[in-house]
Amino acid sequence: MKKSFITLAVLAATGAAMAQSSVTLYGRADLGVGSEKVKGKSTTSMFNGGLTTSRWGVRGSEDLGGGLKANFQFEQGLRLTTGEIAKSGGTEFGRQAHVGLSGGFGKVTLGRTTTVYDDARAVAVSFSVFDSSFTPANNGVFGSGGDYASRASSQIRYDMPNLGGVYGGLTYAFDQKADVDSTITGLLLGYKNGPMNFALGYQNQKEAADKYLQLAGAYDLGIAALAVGYNTRSGSDAKGDDTELTLGVEVPVGAAVKLSAGYATSKTEVGNATSSKASGFALGATYTMSKRTRLYAGYRDVEVKDGSGKVKSDGSLLGLGVRHDF
Amino acid sequence: MKKSFITLAVLAATGAAMAQSSVTLYGRADLGVGSEKVKGKSTTSMFNGGLTTSRWGVRGSEDLGGGLKANFQFEQGLRLTTGEIAKSGGTEFGRQAHVGLSGGFGKVTLGRTTTVYDDARAVAVSFSVFDSSFTPANNGVFGSGGDYASRASSQIRYDMPNLGGVYGGLTYAFDQKADVDSTITGLLLGYKNGPMNFALGYQNQKEAADKYLQLAGAYDLGIAALAVGYNTRSGSDAKGDDTELTLGVEVPVGAAVKLSAGYATSKTEVGNATSSKASGFALGATYTMSKRTRLYAGYRDVEVKDGSGKVKSDGSLLGLGVRHDF
Amino acid sequence: MKKSFITLAVLAATGAAMAQSSVTLYGRADLGVGSEKVKGKSTTSMFNGGLTTSRWGVRGSEDLGGGLKANFQFEQGLRLTTGEIAKSGGTEFGRQAHVGLSGGFGKVTLGRTTTVYDDARAVAVSFSVFDSSFTPANNGVFGSGGDYASRASSQIRYDMPNLGGVYGGLTYAFDQKADVDSTITGLLLGYKNGPMNFALGYQNQKEAADKYLQLAGAYDLGIAALAVGYNTRSGSDAKGDDTELTLGVEVPVGAAVKLSAGYATSKTEVGNATSSKASGFALGATYTMSKRTRLYAGYRDVEVKDGSGKVKSDGSLLGLGVRHDF
Repeated sequence: MKKSFITLAVLAATGAAMAQSSVTLYGRADLGVGSEKVKGKSTTSMFNGGLTTSRWGVRGSEDLGGGLKANFQFEQGLRLTTGEIAKSGGTEFGRQAHVGLSGGFGKVTLGRTTTVYDDARAVAVSFSVFDSSFTPANNGVFGSGGDYASRASSQIRYDMPNLGGVYGGLTYAFDQKADVDSTITGLLLGYKNGPMNFALGYQNQKEAADKYLQLAGAYDLGIAALAVGYNTRSGSDAKGDDTELTLGVEVPVGAAVKLSAGYATSKTEVGNATSSKASGFALGATYTMSKRTRLYAGYRDVEVKDGSGKVKSDGSLLGLGVRHDF
Repeated sequence: MKKSFITLAVLAATGAAMAQSSVTLYGRADLGVGSEKVKGKSTTSMFNGGLTTSRWGVRGSEDLGGGLKANFQFEQGLRLTTGEIAKSGGTEFGRQAHVGLSGGFGKVTLGRTTTVYDDARAVAVSFSVFDSSFTPANNGVFGSGGDYASRASSQIRYDMPNLGGVYGGLTYAFDQKADVDSTITGLLLGYKNGPMNFALGYQNQKEAADKYLQLAGAYDLGIAALAVGYNTRSGSDAKGDDTELTLGVEVPVGAAVKLSAGYATSKTEVGNATSSKASGFALGATYTMSKRTRLYAGYRDVEVKDGSGKVKSDGSLLGLGVRHDF
Repeated sequence: MKKSFITLAVLAATGAAMAQSSVTLYGRADLGVGSEKVKGKSTTSMFNGGLTTSRWGVRGSEDLGGGLKANFQFEQGLRLTTGEIAKSGGTEFGRQAHVGLSGGFGKVTLGRTTTVYDDARAVAVSFSVFDSSFTPANNGVFGSGGDYASRASSQIRYDMPNLGGVYGGLTYAFDQKADVDSTITGLLLGYKNGPMNFALGYQNQKEAADKYLQLAGAYDLGIAALAVGYNTRSGSDAKGDDTELTLGVEVPVGAAVKLSAGYATSKTEVGNATSSKASGFALGATYTMSKRTRLYAGYRDVEVKDGSGKVKSDGSLLGLGVRHDF
């Protein structure tokens, strides 16, 4: 079947009946070449998923009548440098593996998928410079005391219907291990209207005894879009608490180019003493060749210090790459 | 390729030429929530494949002219709770991985697939209450001395053409291990006509020194469908022999609801002494939302005793879920 | 989505717009049954990929305008005897996992794919008797000192545009291991015009300290096609050097049958002494049932001797099988 085609055009050819049931084979291929510097030592190599993780998946929805739909999605991450499956949560289809129903009541999703909290974080880090390998909010800046679980297995996720711009949802993920209480619960509440988007997220990860709270806001001024996020982790006495801040700006230059800059800083306190401080910044540019294909370049610089101000780790990444969606 | 569609409608749009060669991307997503009780201890969790295992696959057939066809199928099982591949026989595409030819002579399949014996068992346990996590014929009821291999690798499977209702087939699976004789051979003979379906199956698993014999019958009375199965395993002196019985009934209620009940009992004898006795029952209901989407609920209760009548294990499962085919 | 179809016919139905962006789900299913003899001991079994490895994949290209295209491919090998993923380079999509751009300048591919050197080898072993399990250039004949890497991870591969029959390319694969220099570089230069095809390939595998040089030529006389290849490996003092020769002929018999024969011989020299000599021959036949489906039969006989002329290993394979493409 060497010349088979699966495209949008099929919809045009076959008419409205198509809308009643659809299955989509989709994916993303993202690779770059860059120079990474860790504690003064540089390595030039090919790197995976400069903008976002490469993947392939199958998803679909079926119209059951009366506004009701059945939905499913299976998605697998890939490392294109080697062809390895990029597991998430230790499983092959760990990016998305779910089935559910949607309708006037909202949407119920069963299985493994992102938590509702991850949607709140996404508002704060919505620019390409954050949603990438160049993000300054990784490499020990965010999550020095353990970053949140962006996905949960055995999850019941509920997304409410949009009510005049108000959106929100709930996550309940069943215990995954017999001997520990690994339940994850979460809540999302947001408001999106025209250029503005505000979100509040909460996530409780019982196994690690960590509670996360995210406040995020984004505003599109037209000549530039701004985003800010404030995130806290409240943990056990031994692990202490984190507070984290992100600032981002993205500026369109003509129709095809977007420049973005991001800053992230965090602090971990155990007892009343600061045990870790970290910060980083990033610069990025994307060039849109088509709706499906982009070129990108980015630079990230991050530094992590211990409580006394001594540098524990620092590093930078300079790279460029290509991302293709299908 | 975010809005591509792969559907039945493509056939209508493109005409009869389509029938000459087809490739289908297909799958199933099945998840439920339930409470399982084992030796008095209850656990509530999400569970996989309440009705049948989640999966995805690719299959196709090519018309070679003169009634001859080339056929293939690759199929992978999934655990949607976590996104893990559900291996069968230890391999990723262990559910189906075969190529073959079919025509007036019948059908020859090469590779890994179900054995012909599995078709005889399917007649006995054809109702949804059996073909599910709620089946009373698992959890030590059937197969206390080792259940049969439902699939075989390196298999040559032959299915004869249907002759006035008579169907049948042969399984020959080559040795998989160098040092043991792991060959599997099997035979199926059945008769299906209108409401009735009878089947006889035989399977010899040389490695385990187990020989299985299945007698199965099903009859659809209209207001209810009935099925009965009698299954024996003849094993080594040390492992002994099993005899197993299944009874099932399924009652349609209106167009969309089916209620079913099943009973299974088994006995293992080593020498002339009974070493194990087990029995279980199940109740199930399915609600057909569309040809592709079902809701289901079920209850299963099983008890396994040793030769002296002492309970070795017991358990129950109460759950509900959704199954979506694509 | 049980009756969905993904075919060529879709193109006809939906018109030229289809050509602008395409995604193809494709694959190959190849299984055979044969008798293998190793040091006098025969084993009859099902064997994988008699003609070529079974596989499935997704590939596509997008027209970006001005002759520029974005291309991608993900491909996974399969062992149909058991349903196991046939990893390449230790990864699941190790056969092909890449993204890139092509246009008037040629083609740039990033990720894991075949090296340009592999294209030169392909000219020498282009007949079905070589490109199969029956190839006499395996089982210790070629590569007694270590065969070349046919694929490389983290590769930048450049293919020049065809210039009046002249073709060529470059491979640069980044270091894959932190502690060793595993870089692979390669070069291809060829000329293809009408019945003739000549190629020169060079590959330097730094980690193993091996340098490969391949000279290959093929000529199609009409009543028969001929191919010859001369290949050398220049290695470390301890591993020595290899010289290898292949000769092949393929004769069409009618429209559907092709008979082919191949001979391969090699020698390894450590210092100035011959440490290993090997040779083998093969006979093959393919019967084309359709463009997508073939039956095949083959025989291969190989013998490897040490420096003193004593037989170290010998073996033969006699088998037949079916290959189906989709």
